[in-house]
Amino acid sequence: MTARRKTALVSPLDDKRIGFEARTLARDHMAVKIWLRMLSCSTQIEREIRNRLRQRFGTTLARFDYLAQLERHPEGLRMNALSRYLMVTGGNVTGLTDQLVAEGWVERVADPADRRSLIVRLTAEGRREFTIMATQHEAWLAEMFEGCEKGLKESLFDMLGRLRVHLSEKEAVAAPDGAPAAKPLKGR
Amino acid sequence: MTARRKTALVSPLDDKRIGFEARTLARDHMAVKIWLRMLSCSTQIEREIRNRLRQRFGTTLARFDYLAQLERHPEGLRMNALSRYLMVTGGNVTGLTDQLVAEGWVERVADPADRRSLIVRLTAEGRREFTIMATQHEAWLAEMFEGCEKGLKESLFDMLGRLRVHLSEKEAVAAPDGAPAAKPLKGR
Repeated sequence: MTARRKTALVSPLDDKRIGFEARTLARDHMAVKIWLRMLSCSTQIEREIRNRLRQRFGTTLARFDYLAQLERHPEGLRMNALSRYLMVTGGNVTGLTDQLVAEGWVERVADPADRRSLIVRLTAEGRREFTIMATQHEAWLAEMFEGCEKGLKESLFDMLGRLRVHLSEKEAVAAPDGAPAAKPLKGR
Repeated sequence: MTARRKTALVSPLDDKRIGFEARTLARDHMAVKIWLRMLSCSTQIEREIRNRLRQRFGTTLARFDYLAQLERHPEGLRMNALSRYLMVTGGNVTGLTDQLVAEGWVERVADPADRRSLIVRLTAEGRREFTIMATQHEAWLAEMFEGCEKGLKESLFDMLGRLRVHLSEKEAVAAPDGAPAAKPLKGR
């Protein structure tokens, strides 16, 4: 019985879910080990979110993130700003915009600051629908983290914040639009 | 002068690099905040790794991860096992295999355990080339984490390990090949 319980707890760690981490060898630097562990966690969460968005709403993470950015900017966003925010999820911003406009969730309007430019923003319907998805998204995440040991969430939030600041400081010498760094990163 | 230094340190946090986190609002659950922070960090590291792999070796992360899995399995891997390991980077395993075989880095051989099946494994040349890339990859990560405050790496490694175990336990009820969970996740 004990052996069985042990198996049930241990086996997930040996399978595909930690494929990334399993490849660390003794020679690996601590940074690599942290990175592979972070990749394991974020991949697992992201896969779950993608699956649930698809199953529950028939939608994609790229589309969810697109709407999330517009929700944060009720005044609307220019396409290039939106592309910058979304570079990570790899969604095709023009394609997504066409779809969402056709479905009535998003509208293209003239930028009040520059009438020759267009901005995109949520319609009332888009906002309503997104709110439903965002509430669900939040509940899924709460569920995934639920029951983890006391203090872990707070510590992780704190540590990841510190890491983020550190990484941003390292990148601060790089040109703001992703061009190659003007000078080498500190420490090289 | 103080104001200027402050700006230099703070502004990276306001730009695209934390687009994900910037969308958290006061109503958001702690789990969402951790997730967006983790996504910020891992996205930033992954983008850097992808850029460097492209610039330095003209290669992709999918290809790097493919080779990394084979390096861990000198005896070779069946295609379906390889696909499972690589589902995350989204590489097309068949396409990558064809390319790497053509370039002499990988070979297809009969599986000794079942002569009707094929396995793929690194050639001596593939192993040599991958070792060069892996060493560089490790150095890039070491450089990115270099100079972060004392103890942060160790704490992060520990916390992410705990989170990974927690997430795996949550998923343990799911069928091993990614089919829908046999019973609802704990806590629903």
